[in-house]
Amino acid sequence: MKTVGIVGLGLIGGSLGLELRSQRLRVLGVSRQEQVCEIALRRGIVDVASVNLSLLGEADVIFVCTPLHAIAAMVEKLVPYLSPGTIITDVGSVKAPVLREVMPLWPHFVGGHPMTGTAQQGVNAAQSGLFVNTPYVITPVEETPEDAVEEVGEIARSLGCQLYHCSPEKHDRAVAWISHLPLFVSAALLETCLGETDGEVLQLAQRFASSGFRDTSRVGGGNPVLGEAIAQYNREELLRSLYAYRHSLDGLINTIEQENWQQLNQQLQINEIERSKFL
Amino acid sequence: MKTVGIVGLGLIGGSLGLELRSQRLRVLGVSRQEQVCEIALRRGIVDVASVNLSLLGEADVIFVCTPLHAIAAMVEKLVPYLSPGTIITDVGSVKAPVLREVMPLWPHFVGGHPMTGTAQQGVNAAQSGLFVNTPYVITPVEETPEDAVEEVGEIARSLGCQLYHCSPEKHDRAVAWISHLPLFVSAALLETCLGETDGEVLQLAQRFASSGFRDTSRVGGGNPVLGEAIAQYNREELLRSLYAYRHSLDGLINTIEQENWQQLNQQLQINEIERSKFL
Repeated sequence: MKTVGIVGLGLIGGSLGLELRSQRLRVLGVSRQEQVCEIALRRGIVDVASVNLSLLGEADVIFVCTPLHAIAAMVEKLVPYLSPGTIITDVGSVKAPVLREVMPLWPHFVGGHPMTGTAQQGVNAAQSGLFVNTPYVITPVEETPEDAVEEVGEIARSLGCQLYHCSPEKHDRAVAWISHLPLFVSAALLETCLGETDGEVLQLAQRFASSGFRDTSRVGGGNPVLGEAIAQYNREELLRSLYAYRHSLDGLINTIEQENWQQLNQQLQINEIERSKFL
Repeated sequence: MKTVGIVGLGLIGGSLGLELRSQRLRVLGVSRQEQVCEIALRRGIVDVASVNLSLLGEADVIFVCTPLHAIAAMVEKLVPYLSPGTIITDVGSVKAPVLREVMPLWPHFVGGHPMTGTAQQGVNAAQSGLFVNTPYVITPVEETPEDAVEEVGEIARSLGCQLYHCSPEKHDRAVAWISHLPLFVSAALLETCLGETDGEVLQLAQRFASSGFRDTSRVGGGNPVLGEAIAQYNREELLRSLYAYRHSLDGLINTIEQENWQQLNQQLQINEIERSKFL
């Protein structure tokens, strides 16, 4: 029977534990907090929980489910406890910088990104079915052992995920377009509206705001820690997407300044048609 | 008993008819299309329907529920049939340009904007309860007769609306922030993502897109005719908001370029806190 280790028992780590235990795998969980270990045990997320990484010495595959900035440091701390064949994988939302840091530390590492989530965080938010029909991206590099890629892919498929393989760079560019750029486009929208200096207009705007504003501003009004981490870790691709966005915005402004309504209408038509391909 | 006329029996005009008839007002409806008149009669939206504006000669209050570009021309066509005291109001989503065009044509005109809607359009989309708890903005100017403002306001309240009064200019600026700017910010996002030239990355982006992209791109992927009309009619305020947005975007890009993570985090924190005031 395979033994799976999970470091970080939050929304993703905890939900992973629930799923893998329901498949009758043995799940060992590590959290920095005793209280989280207790909740994970009580909720049936893990078979054994500990605040000590040494627990994971007997794991065949270890999922590092910490925030982005802690992944490499965690792998470094894990190394002393591992057998040479232990596979480590992560669930970080940016891949190239993680791979660059981790590959020199542990060759049996597979970069992964389960693209799922809820608005909640923490072990209490962990839930069954979180992975069903969501993309799970695996980003092998040249040095990644083939059997490790297969092993992690098999687990991803067992969760009900749609499995994708691509390079870390293409992953980071694709998620910049559909996840990180929208966050900062939305953040700039909020910042701009908050800059209105006429108190009456600002109050009217607050009263009039409805679904259009709610939807467009949602991701820009989310967790600041997540936004900062994305900007730090996917900085290069994010900036690349923001420069392209600024170029599109300038073009749109120019079209409206020139009152080129035919061109505006054409672009909006293309948007309407092409958007369906993303959803 | 008050007699209300409605020109344009689409989503807004039709829903208005349903509500006013349920209050036992007499409702006269005009549409350019015979078929729409028939549907409006069958659905109980109007008491009498016609393709001829002359029907509205006996109305006390007339709601012009046509697209923005047709409002002034419609008022001009109505004038020959009106008594001197007939009140006309509109439901257009931009106010200053409409007021500028219409006030010289008919002094008993009250600019109005019921801020409601659905994704559907047309007489078949008309529904009861569309106005309940939504803002209804009335934008009097210096020449607007006080009794006309009160009359339209009373009807708006009878629909269950939250009634607001402000100048046409403040209305147009407020809706630019929360409705028109989000539309073009969102349109630029779609246009930018569609510009990806690496086919593999574009395809991955399409597969990976989920709720964040769906929400942020929704209004920019909507009806091109509506987007064009907004840009034409609220051009000045829209451009003003787009210039402010470009300034915020440049600041955000600069913060990320400079790796000023503390400032980025602070701005995202402000966004998270202040967003709740809009919803």
